[in-house]
Amino acid sequence: MELIPLGTSSATVVQDRGLSANVLRSRGKVLLFDCGDGTQFRLLKAGIRRSRIQAIFISHLHGDHYLGLFGLLISMSLERRETPLTIIAPQKLIDIIRAIPGLRPGEIHFQIQYIVLAEDCKTQEVYRGHGLQVRAAPLDHGRFCVGFRVEKIDGPNRIDGALAHAHGIDQQEQFERLAAGHTIQLSDGRMVSPDQVKRQSRDAFAYVTDTRPCEGGLDLAGDADLLVHDATFSQEDAERATSTGHSTARDAALLAKTAGAGKLLLTHFSARYSDVMLLRQEARAVFPNTEIAEEYHEYSVTFEGNTSQTDSPNE
Amino acid sequence: MELIPLGTSSATVVQDRGLSANVLRSRGKVLLFDCGDGTQFRLLKAGIRRSRIQAIFISHLHGDHYLGLFGLLISMSLERRETPLTIIAPQKLIDIIRAIPGLRPGEIHFQIQYIVLAEDCKTQEVYRGHGLQVRAAPLDHGRFCVGFRVEKIDGPNRIDGALAHAHGIDQQEQFERLAAGHTIQLSDGRMVSPDQVKRQSRDAFAYVTDTRPCEGGLDLAGDADLLVHDATFSQEDAERATSTGHSTARDAALLAKTAGAGKLLLTHFSARYSDVMLLRQEARAVFPNTEIAEEYHEYSVTFEGNTSQTDSPNE
Repeated sequence: MELIPLGTSSATVVQDRGLSANVLRSRGKVLLFDCGDGTQFRLLKAGIRRSRIQAIFISHLHGDHYLGLFGLLISMSLERRETPLTIIAPQKLIDIIRAIPGLRPGEIHFQIQYIVLAEDCKTQEVYRGHGLQVRAAPLDHGRFCVGFRVEKIDGPNRIDGALAHAHGIDQQEQFERLAAGHTIQLSDGRMVSPDQVKRQSRDAFAYVTDTRPCEGGLDLAGDADLLVHDATFSQEDAERATSTGHSTARDAALLAKTAGAGKLLLTHFSARYSDVMLLRQEARAVFPNTEIAEEYHEYSVTFEGNTSQTDSPNE
Repeated sequence: MELIPLGTSSATVVQDRGLSANVLRSRGKVLLFDCGDGTQFRLLKAGIRRSRIQAIFISHLHGDHYLGLFGLLISMSLERRETPLTIIAPQKLIDIIRAIPGLRPGEIHFQIQYIVLAEDCKTQEVYRGHGLQVRAAPLDHGRFCVGFRVEKIDGPNRIDGALAHAHGIDQQEQFERLAAGHTIQLSDGRMVSPDQVKRQSRDAFAYVTDTRPCEGGLDLAGDADLLVHDATFSQEDAERATSTGHSTARDAALLAKTAGAGKLLLTHFSARYSDVMLLRQEARAVFPNTEIAEEYHEYSVTFEGNTSQTDSPNE
């Protein structure tokens, strides 16, 4: 999986950043997380075809997270999309979509499956498809807002080739029996169970914005290989972060550390910071493997163990 | 007045053009005609402050003409705009705006005055303010769609200084009496009436899209100094223009010629034309003073007499 941030600005529209939108690409299919105003132009610039999008997840109904959705859907309809699309969003947004000329039932040229995010939702699966499972959990933004976590759904006994070879397994038939869940006996008499050779990677991605540090965010971020987290403010504006339902860069880093995340990408920057490197510095003091989410860059979501979770010498 | 096109593409989102949006600036105030997805980013790029916008006119409810409105309004509200804004639009759009979280009555931080474009409207005044009058007229797009015409409202006897001087008028008191509508007598006995020295310029701008050539468009474009007109298709796609309720470049030119317009700007180009100079060529064969509307360029809307309305030698 790769993550491609398309917009990293918080609510204010600024010249050099887009509004919230994040592409997660896996085996050529795309999941889109949030869809701020102008997202369809950013998809175009990133060379990501609209037709690849399988599902769109809207975290909450502040305009900078969803107002690009209508234009994107109209474009999908104009190009006579045939693949169904899944939209995971609060009911109110679904109602608005259904009132937009061109998107009303009977007018739109493709099928939309709506998954309603209920305001009293707990951590729960909201999507499953194309080898991916997505869970949502409520965040703490002062209004209804959810975060998401994506994991690859490997078969229960997906075999790690290198590990199998290390055990002396080299025949196709042996692989197949292990993958089917059977323990096998090798020619030298040793027994090998599926658990001994199954792939450990889970390739987990967590998207946690907009929120104060909270239980739901921690839950989603647990052992995530890549965590994208709200870092709207610097520590010196911590009070403003709390009052507006956001996190500081340090908040994000503390959560990444507690959750045992692999890598932290900071996003959703307030327009007040002309240089967001200050935010990276504040986060790295707590969680060294932190980067600023750069728009149009590709970030790999790959299980790499826990090597990056060493404490900073400054801590 | 100056016109600044911000988006010249028809429905399809393409890399190098924006969706319909046109700024008309007069004495530092801005009227915005249509507001396609992404318009607020284009305003920013053009250096046009949102706070300058006095009124927004929406021609019709195809997404490429209005879906940038919600984000723009949210941004105006976030920046705590205090000036009231006028929105001239069909009722359905007003209903949608009022359903958007953050724009609902009681949530928005500034006053919006809505002027409803009724589906059975005739040519009528829809806005008056900041020395400008705007009229709307129904177009022929296959669905409800209107065009607009802007004129400066000069006082009934606004005096042309150069003309007055040519008549031998040089005293402030004489100017004031003429401006107040009185005929005056000069020291040599000659009588000068306000009609003899009043300013002829009317600085008229017409915005006619999306439409087949029609009576309403002709009415709006009559003697306009600058006419922005739908030129979605080339003549070789004339049937497609008719079937989709649009004009060819030649249609636009014929209308400009019949209306006695000063200058024609072509806009709303189908994505099928990689080189729109073909469209300009087709139009110029009929109406020589034709240009392709270039995004971010400033076009003066100034009364220049009829000098540009000569026929092309090719006609």
